[in-house]
Amino acid sequence: MRVLITGADGFIGSGLVELLRARGRVGEAPVSTLALADRRLAQDVPAGALRFEGDLGSAAVLQRIADFRPELVFHLAAVPGGAAESDYALGRRMNLDATLEMFELLADSDRPPTVVYASSIAVYGTSLPEVVRPDTPLRPPLTYGAHKLACEILLADFSRRGLLDGRSVRLPGIVARPREPSGLASAFMSDLLHALRVGERFTCPVSPQATSWWMSAPCCAENLLLAAAMDVSRADPGRAWPLPVLHLSIAQVIETCAMLYGDDRRQLVTFEPNAKLEAVFGSYPPLDDSASRDLGLHDDGSPDDLVRRALGARDTL
Amino acid sequence: MRVLITGADGFIGSGLVELLRARGRVGEAPVSTLALADRRLAQDVPAGALRFEGDLGSAAVLQRIADFRPELVFHLAAVPGGAAESDYALGRRMNLDATLEMFELLADSDRPPTVVYASSIAVYGTSLPEVVRPDTPLRPPLTYGAHKLACEILLADFSRRGLLDGRSVRLPGIVARPREPSGLASAFMSDLLHALRVGERFTCPVSPQATSWWMSAPCCAENLLLAAAMDVSRADPGRAWPLPVLHLSIAQVIETCAMLYGDDRRQLVTFEPNAKLEAVFGSYPPLDDSASRDLGLHDDGSPDDLVRRALGARDTL
Repeated sequence: MRVLITGADGFIGSGLVELLRARGRVGEAPVSTLALADRRLAQDVPAGALRFEGDLGSAAVLQRIADFRPELVFHLAAVPGGAAESDYALGRRMNLDATLEMFELLADSDRPPTVVYASSIAVYGTSLPEVVRPDTPLRPPLTYGAHKLACEILLADFSRRGLLDGRSVRLPGIVARPREPSGLASAFMSDLLHALRVGERFTCPVSPQATSWWMSAPCCAENLLLAAAMDVSRADPGRAWPLPVLHLSIAQVIETCAMLYGDDRRQLVTFEPNAKLEAVFGSYPPLDDSASRDLGLHDDGSPDDLVRRALGARDTL
Repeated sequence: MRVLITGADGFIGSGLVELLRARGRVGEAPVSTLALADRRLAQDVPAGALRFEGDLGSAAVLQRIADFRPELVFHLAAVPGGAAESDYALGRRMNLDATLEMFELLADSDRPPTVVYASSIAVYGTSLPEVVRPDTPLRPPLTYGAHKLACEILLADFSRRGLLDGRSVRLPGIVARPREPSGLASAFMSDLLHALRVGERFTCPVSPQATSWWMSAPCCAENLLLAAAMDVSRADPGRAWPLPVLHLSIAQVIETCAMLYGDDRRQLVTFEPNAKLEAVFGSYPPLDDSASRDLGLHDDGSPDDLVRRALGARDTL
């Protein structure tokens, strides 16, 4: 099976490359060739993997993708939320135009390629009901989420036409990202974990009561592989599912870190809640993710496992 | 107030031009200049109206719109559903790209223009619940509806950013279109009315039990004007509403025509239901349109009024 990963050099992408290298297969199907696409590919790529370096929307990269004729695509490349909000043109070009161009390029009525599209919980909005359900109206609070939602709809339409076999998965807050500027307004979720692990003070921009949807990067990579192989033949024609999540408050995460790394961790955090961040990233109610679980997707299991896996792989004690 | 109408030469557009000419105002605001855009403008345009002839997506037309700096836009131009389904590239160019280009062109943070966007009940889908409500998941069954829904989302995002004041209204089956090829798969709704009015035989491609959402063209034009003036400051941030409808079966419409035009009309219709048409256009359940009614939008009042108004204006006995 020929597999393409866009955004392969990113935080989620590099974890997926690692997992695919270790497994060598997607479901039952062995990976014959892996192609990695990103603006720059700094990481070590697996032996034999193809490298498509450059802007995803550029003619050169699109041509290489067309020539490769992937049977499975993980489309992870995106301009993050904060950056897409401040630079509308960039967000449109990458998150909407380049994505649609690629869908059109891949469309094939004889052998529709599987497309796992990394959508985002940014499609939901900020005035959420007591429980978020499959029929909760989607009101993206940022242009990033609006473009993600538009692409979910376009991918579902290509699937209906029998030209692609699309699966949009809405990624929650994935931790722990490297401690570097990322353009992500939700970076504090990862920064909190890093700080508590090494025993540093942390000023938290949301309150202890702020609740978010959490998942570790290894769990996310695993879910992306599962999404590629899951049987969606009888699934909702919208072809979009939230990844199952752990619904945790900041206080619960701090408590988990204290149990794992030492009681002193509780004293390291001070709170300076920012109303906008609290509204966008700290006000998530419980999520009815049963449809996703029925398809075999899963969360990290427990707060302990979440924190351990989030900090484990690249940053061992 | 400078007002632009795209698709001004079409069935809905020409009715709106006529109504605007008669009223001279939108809500309380007098119309100072009217600009009409369409590929071709065949109809008599009101004295003093500007004519923007050409493809909406062309640089020339977009430049004229930018120079005109409209304060209110009725965006009606679209490739209809059947044509957009068979010619994907054309549908994408007009129903998605040209629409987004125009939104970007109009965006103005100092004086956000009002944009009334003619969306469609084609956003809903075919497996509808017992009653369609504001939180009914949207599953467009055609590319036309997928593009309409994507543009609703993009317009809501421009509104959230304070760059446009968007109002998407989802048009139901509008009758009675002229008896000519239109590319609309729902044309049978209009053709039935025309045939029964003049006493011709009609082969109906859906069953007598087929239920649809109906509105006359004059009622639609009135609703478009109301949508431009309605106060949406506290409205749902999705900024999209179905126009209130009459929910009628084909049998009810035939009965109404028999009462208006003669008992013999009942015998003129034979039925050859097409499963796909029945599913897409003949399976509409009741619609909870209370949010739209609360904003002042309305239906035709009664089946009698619907048929009379649908056939009245251009085609008097």
